[in-house]
Amino acid sequence: MASEHEEEVRVLGKWASPFTHRVVLTLKLKGVAYKYFEEDFANKSDDLLKYNPVYKMVPVLIHNGNSLPESLVIVQYIDDTWTNNPLLPQDPYERALACFWLKTLDDKILPAVWNACWSDGRDKAVEEGLESLKILQEALNGKRFFGGETIGMVDIAASFIGYWVDILQEIEGLELLTIEKFPKLYKWSQEFVNHPVIKETLPPRDKLFAFFKASASKNKDSTA
Amino acid sequence: MASEHEEEVRVLGKWASPFTHRVVLTLKLKGVAYKYFEEDFANKSDDLLKYNPVYKMVPVLIHNGNSLPESLVIVQYIDDTWTNNPLLPQDPYERALACFWLKTLDDKILPAVWNACWSDGRDKAVEEGLESLKILQEALNGKRFFGGETIGMVDIAASFIGYWVDILQEIEGLELLTIEKFPKLYKWSQEFVNHPVIKETLPPRDKLFAFFKASASKNKDSTA
Repeated sequence: MASEHEEEVRVLGKWASPFTHRVVLTLKLKGVAYKYFEEDFANKSDDLLKYNPVYKMVPVLIHNGNSLPESLVIVQYIDDTWTNNPLLPQDPYERALACFWLKTLDDKILPAVWNACWSDGRDKAVEEGLESLKILQEALNGKRFFGGETIGMVDIAASFIGYWVDILQEIEGLELLTIEKFPKLYKWSQEFVNHPVIKETLPPRDKLFAFFKASASKNKDSTA
Repeated sequence: MASEHEEEVRVLGKWASPFTHRVVLTLKLKGVAYKYFEEDFANKSDDLLKYNPVYKMVPVLIHNGNSLPESLVIVQYIDDTWTNNPLLPQDPYERALACFWLKTLDDKILPAVWNACWSDGRDKAVEEGLESLKILQEALNGKRFFGGETIGMVDIAASFIGYWVDILQEIEGLELLTIEKFPKLYKWSQEFVNHPVIKETLPPRDKLFAFFKASASKNKDSTA
């Protein structure tokens, strides 16, 4: 466990971001105390520009003066630093498979599902989103969580699928991740949102709904 | 060291691919014996389709029947499995910084430099390529290799910058990575190509030159 009086852990984030959520959730799962700072993208903080000069994006972790950007890099660092409740398998092959899914989530699955959510029902984007959800469901391979019986790094990385997608598909009137289409992945999403530590870290549904509904209206106005 | 009589290590690759080179170089640096199988993209092997169903791309590693796709996932697996000559720092923060650069190479730097190489001199693409090389040069931070005094995983991941770019810029008549523009990164590229194990694993320059020259001509014919 972290000896909290010796550690200074700060997170720069956005409350509505699933990437920020990855970091906050990991710190909670590890029992690490931290201070959270909400960023305003219209007026980025000096710390954000200083600590993430390449991307200038959240989340950023600052631990005893050492800063790190990129959510999965941060999650891995937290797992390497606070070694209780390990989030990756110890076996090198199982670990590599988890890393493959982490990479595939960020490179392929999340962009495809995000595009499907904002597709206005365009067939091609919806089809690619559904194909990505199918690939992800296969990765579950009969397990309760991607990490097995407990939450692992792939579960953390998939929080957008576990929570955000249901909100976005309701706003857009789409059927992407449903119990009929993806029974196993849907069941995982229920396990995910009902996990006590996860539940405590998720932004409130009604607040997220209102936030993305307003974004959706703004996008439609600006393309009308 | 690997007890070679007990291990079966196979690589599915393409000789001209810097991503395949990452895997081959890592196996050589670790002293792991392997069998190499050249893929024909016009007629992909059953093994490639079976072992990399998500991307159907090289490289793929098969180790005692366990298969892995994605070059950086494979390189990390090799480093975790054959623990001699470690390729990542042990310190969690230094390790996380290396992982940040690995991600940034694949997400941002290599695509920008690749686009610059094939830009026909379009200002915007060249500018983004040069900006990426500048970011990468800063990551060297006065060190001989990205890994410090010895080759590390970031050096391996940057082999496209260390070797391929010089060939492509000559074909296209561009000045991207030159001693005048990026003295430190250029010096690194010279250290890289002259490292004895790397030298032994790089595809011959004249063969690569002819291969990409033919690709360039074909692209120009098809867009003419």
